[in-house]
Amino acid sequence: MFFHRQELQFKAKPDKPDAVFARKLQEVLGGQYGEITVAMQYGFQSWNAHIPGKYRDLLFGIGAEEMGHVEMLATMIAQLLEDAPLGVVEGAAQDDPAVAAIVGGTDPQHAIVAGAGARPVDSNGNPWSAGYVTASGNMLADFTANANAEMQGRLQVARLYHMTDDKGVKDLLAFLLARDTMHQNQWIVAAQELREEGIEDLPVPITFPVSKENREVSYQYINFSDGQHASEGKWASGPTPDGKGQFEYVAEPPQGVPMPPPTKPDVRFHGTTERPGTLEKAAGAVQDALHKE
Amino acid sequence: MFFHRQELQFKAKPDKPDAVFARKLQEVLGGQYGEITVAMQYGFQSWNAHIPGKYRDLLFGIGAEEMGHVEMLATMIAQLLEDAPLGVVEGAAQDDPAVAAIVGGTDPQHAIVAGAGARPVDSNGNPWSAGYVTASGNMLADFTANANAEMQGRLQVARLYHMTDDKGVKDLLAFLLARDTMHQNQWIVAAQELREEGIEDLPVPITFPVSKENREVSYQYINFSDGQHASEGKWASGPTPDGKGQFEYVAEPPQGVPMPPPTKPDVRFHGTTERPGTLEKAAGAVQDALHKE
Amino acid sequence: MFFHRQELQFKAKPDKPDAVFARKLQEVLGGQYGEITVAMQYGFQSWNAHIPGKYRDLLFGIGAEEMGHVEMLATMIAQLLEDAPLGVVEGAAQDDPAVAAIVGGTDPQHAIVAGAGARPVDSNGNPWSAGYVTASGNMLADFTANANAEMQGRLQVARLYHMTDDKGVKDLLAFLLARDTMHQNQWIVAAQELREEGIEDLPVPITFPVSKENREVSYQYINFSDGQHASEGKWASGPTPDGKGQFEYVAEPPQGVPMPPPTKPDVRFHGTTERPGTLEKAAGAVQDALHKE
Amino acid sequence: MFFHRQELQFKAKPDKPDAVFARKLQEVLGGQYGEITVAMQYGFQSWNAHIPGKYRDLLFGIGAEEMGHVEMLATMIAQLLEDAPLGVVEGAAQDDPAVAAIVGGTDPQHAIVAGAGARPVDSNGNPWSAGYVTASGNMLADFTANANAEMQGRLQVARLYHMTDDKGVKDLLAFLLARDTMHQNQWIVAAQELREEGIEDLPVPITFPVSKENREVSYQYINFSDGQHASEGKWASGPTPDGKGQFEYVAEPPQGVPMPPPTKPDVRFHGTTERPGTLEKAAGAVQDALHKE
Amino acid sequence: MFFHRQELQFKAKPDKPDAVFARKLQEVLGGQYGEITVAMQYGFQSWNAHIPGKYRDLLFGIGAEEMGHVEMLATMIAQLLEDAPLGVVEGAAQDDPAVAAIVGGTDPQHAIVAGAGARPVDSNGNPWSAGYVTASGNMLADFTANANAEMQGRLQVARLYHMTDDKGVKDLLAFLLARDTMHQNQWIVAAQELREEGIEDLPVPITFPVSKENREVSYQYINFSDGQHASEGKWASGPTPDGKGQFEYVAEPPQGVPMPPPTKPDVRFHGTTERPGTLEKAAGAVQDALHKE
Amino acid sequence: MFFHRQELQFKAKPDKPDAVFARKLQEVLGGQYGEITVAMQYGFQSWNAHIPGKYRDLLFGIGAEEMGHVEMLATMIAQLLEDAPLGVVEGAAQDDPAVAAIVGGTDPQHAIVAGAGARPVDSNGNPWSAGYVTASGNMLADFTANANAEMQGRLQVARLYHMTDDKGVKDLLAFLLARDTMHQNQWIVAAQELREEGIEDLPVPITFPVSKENREVSYQYINFSDGQHASEGKWASGPTPDGKGQFEYVAEPPQGVPMPPPTKPDVRFHGTTERPGTLEKAAGAVQDALHKE
Repeated sequence: MFFHRQELQFKAKPDKPDAVFARKLQEVLGGQYGEITVAMQYGFQSWNAHIPGKYRDLLFGIGAEEMGHVEMLATMIAQLLEDAPLGVVEGAAQDDPAVAAIVGGTDPQHAIVAGAGARPVDSNGNPWSAGYVTASGNMLADFTANANAEMQGRLQVARLYHMTDDKGVKDLLAFLLARDTMHQNQWIVAAQELREEGIEDLPVPITFPVSKENREVSYQYINFSDGQHASEGKWASGPTPDGKGQFEYVAEPPQGVPMPPPTKPDVRFHGTTERPGTLEKAAGAVQDALHKE
Repeated sequence: MFFHRQELQFKAKPDKPDAVFARKLQEVLGGQYGEITVAMQYGFQSWNAHIPGKYRDLLFGIGAEEMGHVEMLATMIAQLLEDAPLGVVEGAAQDDPAVAAIVGGTDPQHAIVAGAGARPVDSNGNPWSAGYVTASGNMLADFTANANAEMQGRLQVARLYHMTDDKGVKDLLAFLLARDTMHQNQWIVAAQELREEGIEDLPVPITFPVSKENREVSYQYINFSDGQHASEGKWASGPTPDGKGQFEYVAEPPQGVPMPPPTKPDVRFHGTTERPGTLEKAAGAVQDALHKE
Repeated sequence: MFFHRQELQFKAKPDKPDAVFARKLQEVLGGQYGEITVAMQYGFQSWNAHIPGKYRDLLFGIGAEEMGHVEMLATMIAQLLEDAPLGVVEGAAQDDPAVAAIVGGTDPQHAIVAGAGARPVDSNGNPWSAGYVTASGNMLADFTANANAEMQGRLQVARLYHMTDDKGVKDLLAFLLARDTMHQNQWIVAAQELREEGIEDLPVPITFPVSKENREVSYQYINFSDGQHASEGKWASGPTPDGKGQFEYVAEPPQGVPMPPPTKPDVRFHGTTERPGTLEKAAGAVQDALHKE
Repeated sequence: MFFHRQELQFKAKPDKPDAVFARKLQEVLGGQYGEITVAMQYGFQSWNAHIPGKYRDLLFGIGAEEMGHVEMLATMIAQLLEDAPLGVVEGAAQDDPAVAAIVGGTDPQHAIVAGAGARPVDSNGNPWSAGYVTASGNMLADFTANANAEMQGRLQVARLYHMTDDKGVKDLLAFLLARDTMHQNQWIVAAQELREEGIEDLPVPITFPVSKENREVSYQYINFSDGQHASEGKWASGPTPDGKGQFEYVAEPPQGVPMPPPTKPDVRFHGTTERPGTLEKAAGAVQDALHKE
Repeated sequence: MFFHRQELQFKAKPDKPDAVFARKLQEVLGGQYGEITVAMQYGFQSWNAHIPGKYRDLLFGIGAEEMGHVEMLATMIAQLLEDAPLGVVEGAAQDDPAVAAIVGGTDPQHAIVAGAGARPVDSNGNPWSAGYVTASGNMLADFTANANAEMQGRLQVARLYHMTDDKGVKDLLAFLLARDTMHQNQWIVAAQELREEGIEDLPVPITFPVSKENREVSYQYINFSDGQHASEGKWASGPTPDGKGQFEYVAEPPQGVPMPPPTKPDVRFHGTTERPGTLEKAAGAVQDALHKE
Repeated sequence: MFFHRQELQFKAKPDKPDAVFARKLQEVLGGQYGEITVAMQYGFQSWNAHIPGKYRDLLFGIGAEEMGHVEMLATMIAQLLEDAPLGVVEGAAQDDPAVAAIVGGTDPQHAIVAGAGARPVDSNGNPWSAGYVTASGNMLADFTANANAEMQGRLQVARLYHMTDDKGVKDLLAFLLARDTMHQNQWIVAAQELREEGIEDLPVPITFPVSKENREVSYQYINFSDGQHASEGKWASGPTPDGKGQFEYVAEPPQGVPMPPPTKPDVRFHGTTERPGTLEKAAGAVQDALHKE
């Protein structure tokens, strides 16, 4: 169950309206790595979890926080739009770049659809999609997804930080940056702990017996480009992080196997095939098939 | 530039047709973590790279391999569909569950749209979307995304491995499992190497000065749920992986700040507000605004 | 801020596994009118609200409840999948229709992607999209949207009720049906109250002066089909609900106005136009334009 | 069957080109509540209708009108783009904000894809999606959806009205505003008539026996937020619109039920579970399962 | 303007219910090449047309026909679902494959969302997307798109023809096949006529001066694969259809040009670059930039 | 298998940064008819091909070239963004329209998500979708799709050519224009060759017996609009391109057939029907059905 309190975790109040920045801020609200994504991702990971205890509690604990971040950003965006001018008809205002940013000037739906409100979309107006969510039931994979999400998130907030000089906005971004710092660190140690406790390990999923995979190519870097420098990395020689092998550098892909011949499905799929003599015969084959139908 | 050779990296030949499994196999071809995703992801990461040398060569080298995996899976799917029965009218065949799997029985587009061919979609028929791709220009974030992608990928292939008893299919899956093992290991050491060489570090992006973030909450686990066990994890105390702080456990979220008052944008957005006395007055305000237009 | 408690509002426990029904139940979790939609919709309406007080409190109060419904359904779906058989290789099981429902049999992503977990998608596997959300800032419009959402929601749950005989599932559906009954009633009276208090009225938005619209056609039913019975409805004569006019039935659309002539944009858009004599001349016009570039 | 006449229902001719407004106008052509949505929605509702007569005739009659509105808006947009400047190379023109609006300046696809033509997209360039359409077969639910669609539509047109000072455009908007006024009124009385005629009623669907729902919570407002004002609304006490109960205000959610324990699906889904002793044992369990495959 | 008549162009009445085929038939209603696509495509092409007369009249004339085809298919689908059994609880019925096809058995939304009605989606339940529509303003390109659409359409209907033995359904499919035959022929001659009349020609767009393109590679087939047989086609030698050159076969791609060095954008994008000495220096560069902000 | 070489087919180096044009160029990278589309389309057509030899070799040969075009455009876009200014805080720069084009000014994701890198999206930021791909297994249909794709592609590049005066960019566009010229010509002769060799013919699919279609309407142009000029085209009289008939002009659609009566599905779908007497009776019917459940 979720409960709501009419407070914000941190103040979300801009110094002045800025419709252009409001649009940009949508990215970390409704984008691929925005707050809706992590709120939903941690939610589905917790509901799909297979063990009780600290890992699931962690997911529950942070999931609800992220829903509050959704709220903070939506609140901020609505205020950035609050006193921005309405539109084209205030022609005069447009002479001054400092106030050129009308509501809906860059994201028209801010004006037309939401009436100067926040929307569940990214900075290009793409509606948020659950196709962004990762929740596989395997915690080592998912915590790695989470670590990435928080890295991308902090990176995006850092970029946004340079795109505004509004003190109120920067304060909120500074708060979000710090939380993303925490969450990066957190998912990284949580992943480590899974490994240290023998619950999960590399390669994911550890429960699939490696003996069943094609071990000949399990640790080969195979170079399908003509750059030579990939041989210099730690992925080209030495022990592998899963502790089960040694990296090997293969400078050129070995010869492959011949492609199987092209498929020839049922004639009634009407694909283009080598016709048996003439088109008439081909049509005849279909006719025969039709007779049997 | 890309060059194509009419060979496959590994043989992709099923023992027998299986239209139901063909649909399932679409997931690792055209799904969120399918081969199209990683091929495109490594491609865009290489084109957006900001340093020459081993890291970019690594991206180039593996990106082209993944395009070949797309090809292997498409080839396999087309063959799984090749001799599967066409459809409803072969009613008799449907009595036998072993051969009930007609082309298009579970993914109708395999039959109707592709004529027993592979499609760039996932196992539920959702077209592949570039919304799955991650390429931020920050390599530590992106390599973490890549490690996750290979984990999710190997996990999905492992699950598929249990859903078929076709030896030819299993051979291909065993090959893909091994390559995913390699790629998981590879991205993990590549991420480590970035840190060891001082090129990138935690928290991502390391170049954003942490002094600008709100350091008070940079290492706090704040528990927004009522589970008590999250305090037992390594994210609740002890040093942080970024080497810059100590984790702290906050059992209950501190009091927040009051929400800012609701926004009151321009009357001409026609939002619902407290009306100044009567609706007539409200309409009057809009009229006034209209007169100025 | 949102807080999570590790309880469910109502028990969500099926009597037995049922992977087929798990897929169907996804509709009211992640479909157009599923719980994610209303949770997000009430959230964005509250964050975009322009007046404090009872209406916004109502939105806050119910929004958090709906997030809890998301959780109940995800929990139920995971359990419906929990002990369902894994897949094709248990061929024998497939003889018996009663247990034919393997995990991923109809939604393969339940098995391959989520490992027998719930997903943020609808019953056809379409990822939830924020394109379903309505939050305009105008409460009379939005409360009508909400009433509709709860009607569609109750309708879908009622249909699902007939598609299972699992007592545990039916109990949860009976609970959801009752909440949808409440929420239908609630949004309808909330919309009435807005009108009674003179805060908003028909036609929405009441603050736009009707004198600015083309009043000649404000109350005409114009019949663009050849059915004759639409003249029998209350929309064909009598007073209008907005209290500002009388319905009128127009049996046949009046003659329209001529279409404007086709557009002729800049030649450099290379649209197909009447060529000035010859293609050479047309190319010449582009050449001229190019010279000026 | 549909027939086309080369006339417009109302003149659609702008006074001057305006590529910026052309983009904004796309919202009411191809957005969530644009004319394509209502044309398709009324179409599918009519084709899925289960009773002949006035209600279906109403749907047929208005559906075709909406297709004509699609045409009017497309025609208008093409003209708004017709004589707008082409692009960057007319640098000089960009000095003057009044003519800065080049074709494709804000929606590049207007220029690159359509050659100064209209597109079936919204004002942010999102392609129209049938995910916007509602057609459930239940007329009370669907007419409520229709009333909402016309409210959102009129609201959006009203907002657009303030964003232009083009007399020709405003004339068309004034026409659309009036039609939306009609259609709001119409769906509201049609919904009333369904109830008065005993064909459908609250709660939707009336044919599902309320005795089967969990009546204890059918009329409770349960407050999941900490605002106190929701108790002041008509949804907190008094009779319910469905005539079957009394509203009740529940200031705080009653205690919930414990969550069921986490699921433990088949080991071959490779989810993260409490491992039976060691990872080796876990892998052993999968091995055992594999042997049986 | 569009007018509706309550007739169908051709009878659409199945002999018996068939929920499985109803789902398949959705493809040609709401799929990439379904009737909604062509109805919208011809509509937008007509509204974006730049010349009056026969070509635009052709688009208007056929566009309305296609809307009628949408209606015929929706009507057919609703009837295929009409008397199909409801669902799981009629367990007994499932023993008999001939009647196993419950409503929503393969497309659950047929049951849950539409109540045994048609939906604006394809056979995998993907909502129709305006991303399928082509309307560029260039008629030779667009008529080629139309010819393709009618080919894909007829191909899909032909495949569907083999998947049913319902006489009523086959009658409708036979009608659609014939119309697709007409429309293929029609767009091909219309494209020819554009060329013969000197209105448009190859290469599209003919008005762009070929002298501005890189003529060295205008007629070269460059072989980026290792197959040798492409040299045998008419695209490898001989005159080109545009009448302006001779095909040439290039057996191997000529050497390319070196890639430009990786980009180095502003440090404040926090991309991964070669760090100037140490990470501290890198952070310093950002600090400097921040000071200037 | 695919191999990568660190060269470009043609130089891709702009003279100067131009973030606005970078966004526009995204269209031909990640749009409906961008290079990702054709690369994937030719790939899937080759993997789904049913005959070995020249046609499949052609698809393999050009598919890999198109992947190289993806790379060239991504490389170009990254450079167009490389030295463009970062954002709002450089307020002064915004006074000068010539340098107003900040990174992310029109496509914010260029800045926030990609850090001044290319993205797999179109010029409005829509992620590339595999819904754009055509690969049916029928080569005459698919080659026609390909001819169209190359026409739309060249048209879009031509339009872009007029929107920049950057010599480096124009050079790349001139190269792409020439390749599109080649590819248009190539697919047209390939389609002809299929017909000349008797492998495929009109109407597609030629293997479906035309005797099974409704021949009465196979060559009729039926005019569903009131324009009179369509009678003047070659599609209104004379021989048809498939060599099997004569075009016929039908000035007005013949009378249709009556619509079938509305459907009446199972009462448990709760659709709105004529109620048998009273709502109570209707509910009773559902009750009866429920009892049987």
